[in-house]
Amino acid sequence: MTTLGILGGGQLGRMLAMAAARLGIDCHIYCPDENSPAARVSTTVTVASYYDETPLARFAGSVDAVTTEFENVPAATARFLAARVSVHPSAEALEIAQDRVTEKSFINGIGIATAPWRSVDTLDDLTRALDEIGPRGILKTRRLGYDGKGQARLNGQEGAAEAFVEMRGAPAVLEGFAAFEREISVIAARGTDGTVRCYDPGENHHSEGILRTTTIPARIDAITRDAALTMAEKIVTALDYVGVIGVEMFAMPDGALLVNEIAPRVHNTGHWTIEGCAVSQFEQHVRAVCGLPLGDPARHSDAVMENLIGDDINAVPALLAEPGVALHLYGKGTARPGRKMGHVTRLRAK
Amino acid sequence: MTTLGILGGGQLGRMLAMAAARLGIDCHIYCPDENSPAARVSTTVTVASYYDETPLARFAGSVDAVTTEFENVPAATARFLAARVSVHPSAEALEIAQDRVTEKSFINGIGIATAPWRSVDTLDDLTRALDEIGPRGILKTRRLGYDGKGQARLNGQEGAAEAFVEMRGAPAVLEGFAAFEREISVIAARGTDGTVRCYDPGENHHSEGILRTTTIPARIDAITRDAALTMAEKIVTALDYVGVIGVEMFAMPDGALLVNEIAPRVHNTGHWTIEGCAVSQFEQHVRAVCGLPLGDPARHSDAVMENLIGDDINAVPALLAEPGVALHLYGKGTARPGRKMGHVTRLRAK
Repeated sequence: MTTLGILGGGQLGRMLAMAAARLGIDCHIYCPDENSPAARVSTTVTVASYYDETPLARFAGSVDAVTTEFENVPAATARFLAARVSVHPSAEALEIAQDRVTEKSFINGIGIATAPWRSVDTLDDLTRALDEIGPRGILKTRRLGYDGKGQARLNGQEGAAEAFVEMRGAPAVLEGFAAFEREISVIAARGTDGTVRCYDPGENHHSEGILRTTTIPARIDAITRDAALTMAEKIVTALDYVGVIGVEMFAMPDGALLVNEIAPRVHNTGHWTIEGCAVSQFEQHVRAVCGLPLGDPARHSDAVMENLIGDDINAVPALLAEPGVALHLYGKGTARPGRKMGHVTRLRAK
Repeated sequence: MTTLGILGGGQLGRMLAMAAARLGIDCHIYCPDENSPAARVSTTVTVASYYDETPLARFAGSVDAVTTEFENVPAATARFLAARVSVHPSAEALEIAQDRVTEKSFINGIGIATAPWRSVDTLDDLTRALDEIGPRGILKTRRLGYDGKGQARLNGQEGAAEAFVEMRGAPAVLEGFAAFEREISVIAARGTDGTVRCYDPGENHHSEGILRTTTIPARIDAITRDAALTMAEKIVTALDYVGVIGVEMFAMPDGALLVNEIAPRVHNTGHWTIEGCAVSQFEQHVRAVCGLPLGDPARHSDAVMENLIGDDINAVPALLAEPGVALHLYGKGTARPGRKMGHVTRLRAK
């Protein structure tokens, strides 16, 4: 019997735990929050800080492998655990993805294009960056964790000083505007043996910075599709990654692909795989981090995944009555604006 | 937030708990066994006897609804709980299904055919029954719980006395032999509002008394299919049943259908619905017993479900590598002969 430890207790951990359960694997959730969505479907839970070494060491000693359900797990936590038990993704992969400058440098460094970007530590940096890659761009903190804050859209120098102040001294990055045709994402998985398996790219629609829908397949031609899969494979291989990763890309009008960001975890744009494939992204991740062979990522159906955000939860009675809808609710008590409460998937014949 | 109480901790409870979790519903498992498969994926567990009223009352007070995952839950337990909280299936439905004579009387009483049968309390009863409905038949105890024992195949009076002695004084029933063409089953659900929804019949193959495969659809014509669904609807309605029920039937060469038995719970022959339908039998049962509207039982794909029994577990490495296989393992430690360790479903285009 295998026990998988999961750092984090949100809906991604919940769906990972359910996929692990389907393979007969017990889960042990480690997170600072009481009564988390993931803990409520798992065998064991430790409620403790990611910085507290005593419960971390006990956790490491009680599981066969450790993974994470969110990319902002402190890399030091992953490193501490990795001295005691198998941990995937690695602290190194987390560190790269946790800092937008490190991430973009890594991606460009392996020959993959991004939108133009500049590191911004001072207002002078920002002024120069807007001259060089502007006028339009988005100023973002290098590190996440600002819960929607820490981002400002710019169009020329006007408002730049104000936006810089709002970064509150945090190291930042200016991302140049990319006039993309559509946003797609590749859910890729890499096993301990180096095997890479990718699901077909999905096409994503956001609203107010939050994913609303993913449609499979994306409306891209076969050449673009193959290029997207090749890029994802290059990224996971260069990272020596183990597990599932989400790679967001901009498909440009000229056919070029720019990588927007990578998420070293199961990804919202891969939720459709639960119903669309024999092996979901969640099971694929569990297989990878537990050292099992990867599954077939082929889909038996096309699909549209739609997030239920905030008040969307009020549609549940209608969704329960709608034929052909697979409904997922995350067991979160209160529907706040912007909070992901669940999702639905509608399959379509291929 | 709803909490569903489940009596029983086996794989059916495990899959019920996972389906409930997908709807954001917490589960509380009540069963006498430590570390049961269902408890390991549920929010709360009570390990106690079905006859101990103190923990039962506490359980009733901590959940919003109660259901069962196996048909041999003592009816008195269901009745005790039903005085305190909503319980489905009802004690009455459980009592009917727990006794083969009561069950067959009920089925015949609503105008549905079974194979011929006779109640057997004495050796004289058996001798007479073999004369009347034999020579071939199966002698079974009226009540289950004998773990494969308590059944004897007979062909005429020879061996009858010995078979009767092996019943060890338990009330029994002789079931006459039915030369059926195939065995099918209907997974039916009835909601609190009386709505009935049936999945299409599956065709079942057994070996040594244990289900090996279910294939969807069954090779029956449209008239037989409609008759099977009508029978299942008649049964759940007459029982005033709420939840999912499995109705096993023999399809005879002349087109007649005989009901073999009813199982007042989710059913092994309905496992294919997890992958084949937007709403599985498990979610359908959760919806019914929680008072939610029933879902659409239409399937998007055909399917073959195969049980993994005992040593079949050794095929797991090959199954992990086989494309298009959805693998389910129940988290049971030891593979004993006849023990259901998991199952696989292979979808096929409709």
